[in-house]
Amino acid sequence: MDLSALRTANPEHWTKAAAIRALTLDAVHAANSGHSGMPMGMADVATVLFEKHLKFDASAPDWPDRDRFILSAGHGSMLLYSLLYLTGYEDMTLEQVRNFRQWGARTAGHPEYGHAKGIETTTGPLGQGIANSVGFALAEEIQRAHYGRKVVDHHTYVIAGDGCLMEGVSQEAISFAGKHALSRLIVLWDNNNITIDGTVDMADSTDQVARFRASGWHVQQIDGHDPAAIDEAIARAKTTRKPSMIACKTHIALGHAAQDTSKGHGALTDPDQLKAAKEAYGWTTPAFVVPDDVKTAWEAIGARGAAARAEWEARFASISERRQAEFRRAYARELPRKLTGTIRALKKQASEAGHKVATRKSSEMVLELVNPVLRETVGGSADLTGSNNTKTGDLGVFGADNRKGRYIHWGIREHGMAAAMNGMALHGGIRPYGGTFMAFTDYARPSMRLAALMRIPTVFVMTHDSIGLGEDGPTHQPVEHLAISRATPNTWVFRPADTVETAEAWELALSSTETPSVLSLTRQGLPTVRTQHKGRNLSAQGAYVLADATAKRQAILIATGSEVSIAMAARELLEAEDIGTRVVSMPCMELFATQDETYRRKVLPAGAVRVGIEAAVRDGGWDRWLLGERGKEAKAGFIGMDSFGASAPAEVLYEKFGITAEATVAKVKELLG
Amino acid sequence: MDLSALRTANPEHWTKAAAIRALTLDAVHAANSGHSGMPMGMADVATVLFEKHLKFDASAPDWPDRDRFILSAGHGSMLLYSLLYLTGYEDMTLEQVRNFRQWGARTAGHPEYGHAKGIETTTGPLGQGIANSVGFALAEEIQRAHYGRKVVDHHTYVIAGDGCLMEGVSQEAISFAGKHALSRLIVLWDNNNITIDGTVDMADSTDQVARFRASGWHVQQIDGHDPAAIDEAIARAKTTRKPSMIACKTHIALGHAAQDTSKGHGALTDPDQLKAAKEAYGWTTPAFVVPDDVKTAWEAIGARGAAARAEWEARFASISERRQAEFRRAYARELPRKLTGTIRALKKQASEAGHKVATRKSSEMVLELVNPVLRETVGGSADLTGSNNTKTGDLGVFGADNRKGRYIHWGIREHGMAAAMNGMALHGGIRPYGGTFMAFTDYARPSMRLAALMRIPTVFVMTHDSIGLGEDGPTHQPVEHLAISRATPNTWVFRPADTVETAEAWELALSSTETPSVLSLTRQGLPTVRTQHKGRNLSAQGAYVLADATAKRQAILIATGSEVSIAMAARELLEAEDIGTRVVSMPCMELFATQDETYRRKVLPAGAVRVGIEAAVRDGGWDRWLLGERGKEAKAGFIGMDSFGASAPAEVLYEKFGITAEATVAKVKELLG
Repeated sequence: MDLSALRTANPEHWTKAAAIRALTLDAVHAANSGHSGMPMGMADVATVLFEKHLKFDASAPDWPDRDRFILSAGHGSMLLYSLLYLTGYEDMTLEQVRNFRQWGARTAGHPEYGHAKGIETTTGPLGQGIANSVGFALAEEIQRAHYGRKVVDHHTYVIAGDGCLMEGVSQEAISFAGKHALSRLIVLWDNNNITIDGTVDMADSTDQVARFRASGWHVQQIDGHDPAAIDEAIARAKTTRKPSMIACKTHIALGHAAQDTSKGHGALTDPDQLKAAKEAYGWTTPAFVVPDDVKTAWEAIGARGAAARAEWEARFASISERRQAEFRRAYARELPRKLTGTIRALKKQASEAGHKVATRKSSEMVLELVNPVLRETVGGSADLTGSNNTKTGDLGVFGADNRKGRYIHWGIREHGMAAAMNGMALHGGIRPYGGTFMAFTDYARPSMRLAALMRIPTVFVMTHDSIGLGEDGPTHQPVEHLAISRATPNTWVFRPADTVETAEAWELALSSTETPSVLSLTRQGLPTVRTQHKGRNLSAQGAYVLADATAKRQAILIATGSEVSIAMAARELLEAEDIGTRVVSMPCMELFATQDETYRRKVLPAGAVRVGIEAAVRDGGWDRWLLGERGKEAKAGFIGMDSFGASAPAEVLYEKFGITAEATVAKVKELLG
Repeated sequence: MDLSALRTANPEHWTKAAAIRALTLDAVHAANSGHSGMPMGMADVATVLFEKHLKFDASAPDWPDRDRFILSAGHGSMLLYSLLYLTGYEDMTLEQVRNFRQWGARTAGHPEYGHAKGIETTTGPLGQGIANSVGFALAEEIQRAHYGRKVVDHHTYVIAGDGCLMEGVSQEAISFAGKHALSRLIVLWDNNNITIDGTVDMADSTDQVARFRASGWHVQQIDGHDPAAIDEAIARAKTTRKPSMIACKTHIALGHAAQDTSKGHGALTDPDQLKAAKEAYGWTTPAFVVPDDVKTAWEAIGARGAAARAEWEARFASISERRQAEFRRAYARELPRKLTGTIRALKKQASEAGHKVATRKSSEMVLELVNPVLRETVGGSADLTGSNNTKTGDLGVFGADNRKGRYIHWGIREHGMAAAMNGMALHGGIRPYGGTFMAFTDYARPSMRLAALMRIPTVFVMTHDSIGLGEDGPTHQPVEHLAISRATPNTWVFRPADTVETAEAWELALSSTETPSVLSLTRQGLPTVRTQHKGRNLSAQGAYVLADATAKRQAILIATGSEVSIAMAARELLEAEDIGTRVVSMPCMELFATQDETYRRKVLPAGAVRVGIEAAVRDGGWDRWLLGERGKEAKAGFIGMDSFGASAPAEVLYEKFGITAEATVAKVKELLG
């Protein structure tokens, strides 16, 4: 392709875009890995977006009312790193760009949230960014409705690739955004017809324009290398009342020998071809060197938003101090002081009342008290509202006619819900929680993992958490899903035993600032086991002695959630036979693991046999507590599942799968010999 | 709604459809749970489909050339059970229908593959059926091309609900089917505008007709209660050269007080309302009683295909005996005798050559030999062909222009790929395998779980299986994914250490008749550890002694995959210090668990400290082997990951995360005290 026409038509634009292309080539060459073609193809679109439209101030990257820029096609990370370096983000130095993909650098292979300012979300697993962006746009709508346009008034821009649009989660995102007319969401599709295996049309012939329109989007089609067309299209997209998609026809790896090929998608490291590409760009400086005038021009773009930010600061200062404090508290992920007292009161009431209640219902009881106090919660469910018990009286349902609504009917879109919740948490000022059946952790997994990796406190409300859901059968009965979430680093998995522990779990999940929580809740009613009120949050230590041995301690039963009452019943039977038995309730293994050894030894002393009880597979982190981390600690057994479940009433299933007090007693006796 | 017009317009049709509705009401009432509305809404469509179009013979449910009927909206299971009972499937007795959702019944809450003939796939998790159906249709195309229309010539029909179409995986399925013009696929959409939370338009406003057309489908819109319209639409769908979607406008829970409401989606058990609905249907027999004439009419439908089947048997008998044998062998999931010898020869060659090679490349070497021998394999990758090494020379690429192609470019659709592979395995006659990066297990999870639940031998080729993939960083580095698959019942997780073990893993995966396999393969090169050739498949026992202690045995190192060579290096260092060290290679924990205790004790005798080495989290089933199932067996430690990975070259990561021979030596010494 002859680039001279592009170069001469708009030389100032061209040089700025060429800086992105040259830095990309240099960084990928130095790392000898990465993806060159996407940044080279989308440099024009990104340059126009940053120069003419994106509201940001590189010197204040945390400005809450900035536009958000999401690089959904995360493999093109050098596009983002180049932009951050060029516009003058303090923590994206040239040194970082030089160390692309090296140990300790902020410039990871794919953009990692938290590594550098300006990286709004972690992308790489395709489709995540576009699905996150729905949450960003939702958060903006809800906060704009709550605080007014004086304080909240920004856009979310996404660059998405063909891969993002092929992933199913994109359909969940697109259809949701269309339904709710999220007009502040603007997606720039890098329409380059290239994937890793070859041309897109080898695997897909979708008419993307028609597809987005079918979901209620405003769509434009432009030449992605024409700065004027890009500018006009973005300007128009900002005026529509629908979410906007701009199909940008681009050449991947523009100007390189590998342009328009799947080779161009990957790492372009051939030195001669690199040299030739730079020549075609008219780029003459050595590797990693951006001419001063070009850098200065880019830094001016980075500073362009300073005035707008100052005006915003003034407007923000003009709202009431109470509102300012509320806004700042929510963005800081701090809880209102009142919350602890609210939860303590509920615990007291629940322990005294001693009702039999399903923990999903307990969760609703907590939320009914929490949501009015914690105004930044946004709840929802993937079409299981009445089953997940996630909706409370005061929330209001979000929709085009009620932007203040804090309850989202996500539709049958578990993955899209999880990704959008992450987006809301990342946007800031929102505490998202959302529900589905625990077995459908499988659908939400890619985004649940990313919440953990990004260190954001998304709350996943997973009800119907075992064979205890009964007749729906094995497709709906989780057996390995506690194990899945527990095996994931930086994830708190709470499996509360009753209303008291459920309230404690919620308090911990909402107090978390950088760890997502999975709440594993029952369909079936459970008796209250915490019948003696303690103000302190016992679940914060992960596990605690619920009932101790009266006779000489010979056995320790460790149980979670719905099986704690089974452990208590087994203890009764054992104690009646003079087998001293302690029951340890373990609502959160991860928090127990963070306790000091003294406490852990106190809860789980040596010298007694141990039986774990959980209606799930033993692989879910049990052996560490049963056998000791280095072994040789205890003789132990496990009462749980080692197969999928079955369709039948819950009581029948517990009996048939041998998860009963009687089986527990038998196991203890077998271990005692 | 006044049903009299419908009743009188076509009384014979009406009565047959009413039988479905009445049985549904009775079964849900008896179970006091289930979903009444969907079968009641789609009874007309299903009746016309079975009466006029579906090619089947209830007396020969395994007839390979039958049409497949997939109930993607699996919660409406009573629709399927009613049809199977009414048409006279032997194992779907009235007793089974009466025991809907009870322990031991074939009539589980959601249709479970293997419970009864005529249940072609397990559904319930929404979107799975429609995504499976792509694999059914693919299998038919490929086999038709291979065997000719004499032998293979059938359709795949799907009933899908609003929920199926909202799930992202449906987009992956629809766009793939459209691209490849899978014209034998006909989807009947139950367009009832109702979900659990309310009306569909609360959460979705997608123009489904436009959406399907955008993906290249033929679309019709009909009244789903008009038998003539249903008949005509299906007839037309069979003639198109595209996949077909028929939007059937229906009333959920037709004729019941809960018609057209989300209450109607659930269990309708009120006796008075039940009575009123039956009266409106003109249904006067007691619960579960179908009048003889109606049952006889339905049984005639069940027998309608007998002649076609006899003709097919004759045609089948006319093809060559070799082809008949090949066909039968593939459907029986038997391997050609030649395969064992082929694999043994590769093992011998690999153990002698001793090359350093990545196991993803080893896998390709195996497949290059296997695919020409095992003609029923269909391989593919979710746009990572060159990385997953799944394509071999002889396969040919499947497409509209090459129906004999056995390699599928799935596009960036891991979930759709996994579901469609399940569909191919369920259809029969095909051995599907497909690749992606192991971290994207997350995307494919819902279908990987269903493969295990359905007991089908789908093979998931998961490459780039640890931090060893290097620079792509933590989004792409699995750490918990071995744990995830190992925690799933009925799943074999193979993590081979070199080419020899990779060949053994493939042999086992392909020999499997009812267990799916996950092959965990490296990006990075690995030295050959099995340098001494053994004809026997040592991996079949799950774990074995790779190198024994020469000095007195003080330590046992247990490792998998890329960490086996680290264990071997650590052993060298330890033995040099007179610390006798055994190395156990453990390519498949699940198979080791099935060995008898004698063998397990032989491999893992007491009296030595044990260190597990795997670049993944310890939760992945390790403690059982390190500590003993009942504890008190060994002092043990683990060298692996307890956090997410990072972006850097692989060698740097192994060093920084402490997964080295030196760290292993230090751990052994620490345990020895």
